[in-house]
Amino acid sequence: MVRFSANSVVFLGLGLISGSLALALRAAGWQGSLSAWGPREPSLQRGQELGIIDGYTLDLDEAIQSADVIVIGAPPMASGDLLATVLPKLDARDQRPVVTDMASIKGWVIDRAGFNYSRFVPGHPIAGSEHSGVDSAQVRLFQGREVILTPNEDTDPQAIEVVSAMWQAAGSRITLMSVADHDAALAASSHSPHMIAYALTKALAVDPLDAMRHGGGALRDMTRIAGSDALMWRDVALTNRVALVDALTRVEAEIATLKRDIDAEDGSALEAYFTTCREFRRSHDAILNPLTDLSSVTDDSVS
Amino acid sequence: MVRFSANSVVFLGLGLISGSLALALRAAGWQGSLSAWGPREPSLQRGQELGIIDGYTLDLDEAIQSADVIVIGAPPMASGDLLATVLPKLDARDQRPVVTDMASIKGWVIDRAGFNYSRFVPGHPIAGSEHSGVDSAQVRLFQGREVILTPNEDTDPQAIEVVSAMWQAAGSRITLMSVADHDAALAASSHSPHMIAYALTKALAVDPLDAMRHGGGALRDMTRIAGSDALMWRDVALTNRVALVDALTRVEAEIATLKRDIDAEDGSALEAYFTTCREFRRSHDAILNPLTDLSSVTDDSVS
Repeated sequence: MVRFSANSVVFLGLGLISGSLALALRAAGWQGSLSAWGPREPSLQRGQELGIIDGYTLDLDEAIQSADVIVIGAPPMASGDLLATVLPKLDARDQRPVVTDMASIKGWVIDRAGFNYSRFVPGHPIAGSEHSGVDSAQVRLFQGREVILTPNEDTDPQAIEVVSAMWQAAGSRITLMSVADHDAALAASSHSPHMIAYALTKALAVDPLDAMRHGGGALRDMTRIAGSDALMWRDVALTNRVALVDALTRVEAEIATLKRDIDAEDGSALEAYFTTCREFRRSHDAILNPLTDLSSVTDDSVS
Repeated sequence: MVRFSANSVVFLGLGLISGSLALALRAAGWQGSLSAWGPREPSLQRGQELGIIDGYTLDLDEAIQSADVIVIGAPPMASGDLLATVLPKLDARDQRPVVTDMASIKGWVIDRAGFNYSRFVPGHPIAGSEHSGVDSAQVRLFQGREVILTPNEDTDPQAIEVVSAMWQAAGSRITLMSVADHDAALAASSHSPHMIAYALTKALAVDPLDAMRHGGGALRDMTRIAGSDALMWRDVALTNRVALVDALTRVEAEIATLKRDIDAEDGSALEAYFTTCREFRRSHDAILNPLTDLSSVTDDSVS
């Protein structure tokens, strides 16, 4: 594992994810400078008050002027736009900073960036929360979680090393994937589950008996992520449209199968189906609960 | 609140739910006798080893002989069968014990019991876990959770008081509902969410990229209950068939709406939809997370 030794990290956008990364880097003993740019001063001010960043600016050119590592911390669409603005400015420099983003979609963001900057390493930490904003930052958010990087053949290997070292310092493990595989896998593992949670929540919102009043732990978990940021998930849905619709169609087919078996009162088919699911889910416990004592980090209880 | 003052509680079936109730009653300082009957000796032996029950028998008649309160702790179908066997035996007695069950379905179980015993109070604690068996019993499982009772006009009010007092001692709050409302509300709030979790898990089990390997906290929560007991959920699906198919159809309609909006790239519709869900979910936070420091009681971390 390479040590993360950059002198300065600048966040373009300061919220839950970038704030959590800042906290994790500090907790790991990294002593470089941490600053941020953003379109809204209150979050930046709040980040400084909380001791998450050392300083901030509202001037984008000033922000990127002396950064070793630039981390885009914005929803997918804004990430693409920021990259399109920033990458050409950096390319002319002698000391070209490393750039990475953290958007849940890679294809759309890279296309939108529209500029082949060899020290840009597209990234996506598989960690989040239904909460948003720098106030919700959590030092252990990335502990044991996967960070997927999707470099291409032109990406500078040293830049990949720097980004990998940064995330490893924050407690994550690195996976390299193609852009297409990332977007298809995440449609199935994250984007479609979010849509399913929204759909279930909406069905309950119009339920004649207001059945959510009678919810327990199952409903708590099945609807938690329906509390997620609406703008962020609108972006995800729009920018990973094709893979997401495909993933949703596959879940729909499974629901239809279950409905058919229930309607036909086919007890053995149902029992076999549920047993397969139990075994499959349990064989992934270690990935889904990387640190069991941290299992509550994204619970409602954490603000 | 009436104090729970029965001399003896007998569980017919000892597993996660009955074991947790036993632990909660002891923790509340209740000092009566706690025993159990069950079809399989190892769970009963284990319950005694763990100090959850004082004693057990494999003889059903012996078990119910001197009980003040009989609690059926079995999956829905077995609960109905046990009630059909036990209620007629109790009805002839001078001192008729209070009987309650804890099955997730009320209509089917009551029909199956097929005997109008006025001291039978159908019940359903809205708490559970994807784990099963007495080893998974948790003393705080019912803290702040709802217990729904569905007595009818013939039910002895004193029996309702006894069952209410027992659950209140365990930390729960009591709601009285009609059988039909219970089964429809629970189809929407619990049974359909379980089917959705199974469907999502199955879609991932056949995913060409094995996308569950890339799951984070969202997928952890959205598939946790797919680890639930297959037999129990087969019973639920079969015994609440009509209401469940109806609830699933309503979720399917919502998924179809979302897919249509995604496909049409209708960003404002999606943002409005997600915002509605966020607000609705958050307005139910207090119910779904009754004791935030207990939010991990049904997490994978608890065994």
